[in-house]
Amino acid sequence: MSFISKIFNSHPEKDGDFFLGITHILGFKPKNISIYRKAFLHRSANKKDKDGNPLNYERLEFLGDSMLGTIISKYLYNEVPLGDEGYLTKMRSKIVSREHLNELGKDLELIKYVESRISKSHFGDNIHGNVFEALVGAIYLDRGYQYCEKFINERVIGPYVDIEQLEGRVISYKSLVIEWCQKQKKQFNYNVYEDTGNDTLKHFAVKLSIDNNVIAKARATSKKKAEEAASKRAFFALQDKIKKSK
Amino acid sequence: MSFISKIFNSHPEKDGDFFLGITHILGFKPKNISIYRKAFLHRSANKKDKDGNPLNYERLEFLGDSMLGTIISKYLYNEVPLGDEGYLTKMRSKIVSREHLNELGKDLELIKYVESRISKSHFGDNIHGNVFEALVGAIYLDRGYQYCEKFINERVIGPYVDIEQLEGRVISYKSLVIEWCQKQKKQFNYNVYEDTGNDTLKHFAVKLSIDNNVIAKARATSKKKAEEAASKRAFFALQDKIKKSK
Repeated sequence: MSFISKIFNSHPEKDGDFFLGITHILGFKPKNISIYRKAFLHRSANKKDKDGNPLNYERLEFLGDSMLGTIISKYLYNEVPLGDEGYLTKMRSKIVSREHLNELGKDLELIKYVESRISKSHFGDNIHGNVFEALVGAIYLDRGYQYCEKFINERVIGPYVDIEQLEGRVISYKSLVIEWCQKQKKQFNYNVYEDTGNDTLKHFAVKLSIDNNVIAKARATSKKKAEEAASKRAFFALQDKIKKSK
Repeated sequence: MSFISKIFNSHPEKDGDFFLGITHILGFKPKNISIYRKAFLHRSANKKDKDGNPLNYERLEFLGDSMLGTIISKYLYNEVPLGDEGYLTKMRSKIVSREHLNELGKDLELIKYVESRISKSHFGDNIHGNVFEALVGAIYLDRGYQYCEKFINERVIGPYVDIEQLEGRVISYKSLVIEWCQKQKKQFNYNVYEDTGNDTLKHFAVKLSIDNNVIAKARATSKKKAEEAASKRAFFALQDKIKKSK
């Protein structure tokens, strides 16, 4: 058995868990699980291949960072047909900002799978985003471009990317809805409850009622996001009313 | 007929030429030729879509730049298994440098197809690299990732990327070969002749003889490149002899 396979088989009781956990995060089955192992290998683990060369996620992070940028570029190209290249570049930087990627990595709880020698509490925030990028790199090598695009559409663009908000045109739909209710002297209520179901991540559901009528529902990985999503739906449903009231 | 199709059909006598020329450059047939038209549309042409929005290659350049970086990243990841992410980043910057892309765009004679209002002699050197990136963006939209990878492998990596040279370990194989011949008191001769055949681009072939024995042949888009390629082959063929003579 080579040294690499020894590393990857050193916790046989955990291997099945790792495979299942990663499959849940990806939404599809890995072909070569050892590439994903590498995506979670922190340099402090000090792992080496059979020739003594360092083995950690940093090379995969380099690859994933580039692929993520490309798929976001294509999304923006198609989504914002009137944006010039300056606008597209600016929006892409916002989407792939360190802060944004760290949030993503945290929501996916990637740190659970990180193998390191230093305590996870000593990692800075960037570990979350770095491992997320390494995971994209691993998908690229393991399953190719199309699976990367699918993963990024489902895990990044769908749940996190809102052009309106990124442009700063709308900071919070919730505040717009509340402002409107107050002006109109209407009662509003955000009814939030946990609703994880079969998902990998904890999820919250929210029902937004105005004057005791449920007018929007949403579900997301945090209370704040669920409320914001429901508010956005309510906002568009009420848009005509809101516009007329101004 | 829409305004866009009017633009793209404004030179009917040239449309067939454009399609053939692009097919030659790509090495495969475009599906949607109008995307490639856009890749050659300079902002000075002042073209607009039917809603009056500017139409030029700059958005495609944004997309192609990103895709090119990703494919080069994957190439480097696989080709240099021991390079850390700092090394990979540095090598990628060298490969996709403005200077390098301009050389590429010039060799492909992309400027022939550029549509502009200002005279082509007034363009700076960057037009060549910019249009090359836009062309990669057009391939990405028209035919997807795999055709981009094929195109970049065939048109960039194969003919232009030499890790040894990029690392500065070897500046010129020709000078190594000449140095060796001089020390060994051997006659050398580079016999260069044009050999374009059915290629899109002008090609040169070279036969390198040492003491009247042909020891390497090569073919490339310039005399200098062909000589360098033949020298590299000769260098590896002679490597043992050269090492022993030092």
